[in-house]
Amino acid sequence: MISNEEYGLRMASLQQQVAASDLDAYIVTNEENIYYLTGVSYKQQERPFFIIVRPEPPVVLLTPALEGEHLGNAPNIDQVIWYWDYPSPLGEGWSEKLNDILDSTMAIGVEPSLKLEIVEALSEHEYRILPLVEDIRLVKSAAEIEMIQTAARFCDMGAGKILEAAYPGITLLEIASLSRSVQLAIIKQVGYDPLATNLMMAAWPAPLSAQPHGVPAIGDQFRAGPHIWLSYLRVNGYAAENERTFFLKPPTAQVKEAFAAMTEARKRAFAAVRPGVAAVEVDLAAKEFLRREGFGDYLLHRTGHGVGQDNHEGPWIAEGSDQVLAENMVITIEPGIYLPDVGGVRHSDTVLVTQDGYRLLTNFPTDIKSLTVKGAKPMKRIMGKIIRKVAGIG
Amino acid sequence: MISNEEYGLRMASLQQQVAASDLDAYIVTNEENIYYLTGVSYKQQERPFFIIVRPEPPVVLLTPALEGEHLGNAPNIDQVIWYWDYPSPLGEGWSEKLNDILDSTMAIGVEPSLKLEIVEALSEHEYRILPLVEDIRLVKSAAEIEMIQTAARFCDMGAGKILEAAYPGITLLEIASLSRSVQLAIIKQVGYDPLATNLMMAAWPAPLSAQPHGVPAIGDQFRAGPHIWLSYLRVNGYAAENERTFFLKPPTAQVKEAFAAMTEARKRAFAAVRPGVAAVEVDLAAKEFLRREGFGDYLLHRTGHGVGQDNHEGPWIAEGSDQVLAENMVITIEPGIYLPDVGGVRHSDTVLVTQDGYRLLTNFPTDIKSLTVKGAKPMKRIMGKIIRKVAGIG
Repeated sequence: MISNEEYGLRMASLQQQVAASDLDAYIVTNEENIYYLTGVSYKQQERPFFIIVRPEPPVVLLTPALEGEHLGNAPNIDQVIWYWDYPSPLGEGWSEKLNDILDSTMAIGVEPSLKLEIVEALSEHEYRILPLVEDIRLVKSAAEIEMIQTAARFCDMGAGKILEAAYPGITLLEIASLSRSVQLAIIKQVGYDPLATNLMMAAWPAPLSAQPHGVPAIGDQFRAGPHIWLSYLRVNGYAAENERTFFLKPPTAQVKEAFAAMTEARKRAFAAVRPGVAAVEVDLAAKEFLRREGFGDYLLHRTGHGVGQDNHEGPWIAEGSDQVLAENMVITIEPGIYLPDVGGVRHSDTVLVTQDGYRLLTNFPTDIKSLTVKGAKPMKRIMGKIIRKVAGIG
Repeated sequence: MISNEEYGLRMASLQQQVAASDLDAYIVTNEENIYYLTGVSYKQQERPFFIIVRPEPPVVLLTPALEGEHLGNAPNIDQVIWYWDYPSPLGEGWSEKLNDILDSTMAIGVEPSLKLEIVEALSEHEYRILPLVEDIRLVKSAAEIEMIQTAARFCDMGAGKILEAAYPGITLLEIASLSRSVQLAIIKQVGYDPLATNLMMAAWPAPLSAQPHGVPAIGDQFRAGPHIWLSYLRVNGYAAENERTFFLKPPTAQVKEAFAAMTEARKRAFAAVRPGVAAVEVDLAAKEFLRREGFGDYLLHRTGHGVGQDNHEGPWIAEGSDQVLAENMVITIEPGIYLPDVGGVRHSDTVLVTQDGYRLLTNFPTDIKSLTVKGAKPMKRIMGKIIRKVAGIG
């Protein structure tokens, strides 16, 4: 849980940044940034909402009437102004109300994610694009690390359930269905904010695992391997991920070789993680090794990304990133090799940057033996048959 | 299913609009618009993707390497250009590649939802903000209407399950869990695209139902009423909704009066629906009646919105909308009255605008008697107890 005191510190940091950037006002509309500043989880769809932050109070919330009551009591909000709806009668809409709040002489800052539709309403104003809240969010507090650790624990639980359930012939539907028991465990153990909790438990069967963003079908059956599972959660506002390559039959020599290279690349990336190291160095520690080993044509993505409120956020562990690791950032390490028509090999862990290196927040075996399921498991086969029959698949 | 021929017609319409708007190129980055033009469901997160449409071929897709293979085969794509990742080494990122595609002398059009981060990369260019794809999407084809009708049928199925399951003391968890059997029915009957399918089956208990966007807790128990359920789905790319006020005890005189006014407002809104009528007239037909009846202080939102790929899209049935209804638009009609500390009354249906009026795509009883659950239902109570015990709630 994030305390009201911590929300207060977050807002104070932002107000300090607004002043230090010589801004009179900063406009926050990004859902994740608003959640960070207020703990309010709200899906905007077409109805934008705004927090207008100046170096000094009051902090003003501009929100549709629909949301006024439940957002008005959020921490850090001094004043609530309602607009009607999307769209609104003349004078009642968000654009007019926003311009009432902002004086046209003000120096204004906005977020990189701001939509042009909203920018158009600011046509009277000069504005600068600054990721002030995104930057504050990079380093996590003790309470945030605890929330991410909790999410990571449930990711490991999900991973364990996948490994336990797997058998040759299992379908994606059966794997995805395991999220139900993780969900019940979350409800029981830590409570459940439905707007700030998402569960994705899925797996990519070989050879589709060679396309990390391909879309597997719900009836796809898993045979030998290499398959990749994602136990990818957001639990009450904070995310984590556990991804593993797994097998339902011992891998071929070709796959073993790729797996060994991925394992070594992971090791090298981890060895580079500590405060003061450029994120790009961690990326290159993995990628340059893989290129030297001849896998350069089989890479499809960077080595990792930050994790916090979002499953994906800064710092970006990637060439082209100018970010530098600092204590209490949380990142993933997940170099992958993708062999067309064969499958992919990738593990991903959620990792805390500590004073002298790193600590794994997800904890799960990484070796081929532990990730290979053997044996007939007749009861699972029978249960699988029943589920597939109900769903008419497989 | 949307045929390749229909995708071709969609792209041809857009190319026509690009030419008619005197643009040399139009940049599509909105996920829903790209899905409309290509059938590709892709969650962008931080990695944008782009379709660059000119009055003549080629249509160019710019996509991260991660997505190249599964997006490259989409309908309407003549040329695929890959960028590396987010971020990328110098020269390998989306912004450089985008500027390679676009000649700085071109007249460019962009979407209202475009993010400033992307706009910054277009700083060499003049651009105009035009909702070209959103406008094309307003009127639905026969195949789209069939897809929305299918989603509406599953919404009705979900609503039936809620009504069947309800008993005094039922928790939100039990109601939300009903989505599982709707999901299995979707898989079995029409197949299941996990990236284009979402199920929200939820309900707001009294008195929280007076805050239509308040966030109920998973352990909240439903007593007398008035409660509001949402059976709110997107099934393989097309959405629908069925919402009903329901009761676990006959309503009080005050609630009955509000329910009767809501019923009459609905009737008046429906009576206004036909091609050629301004969307605002439909909104006012409901709202002016409710204001006259003294409910003006208890309204929190417009009368409805369009439905298609998005659960919420144009046309907006709202004051401030300049849209005019046309045959084969799909909208909701959902006037609501919200009595603080008592609860809300609102029904919502998914409605097709026909040549001479409208046709309901959702079909479910609307009267108090049909929506009041009585009786002890001992088996349900016992099952509910077990679920609550497993989840540690209630």
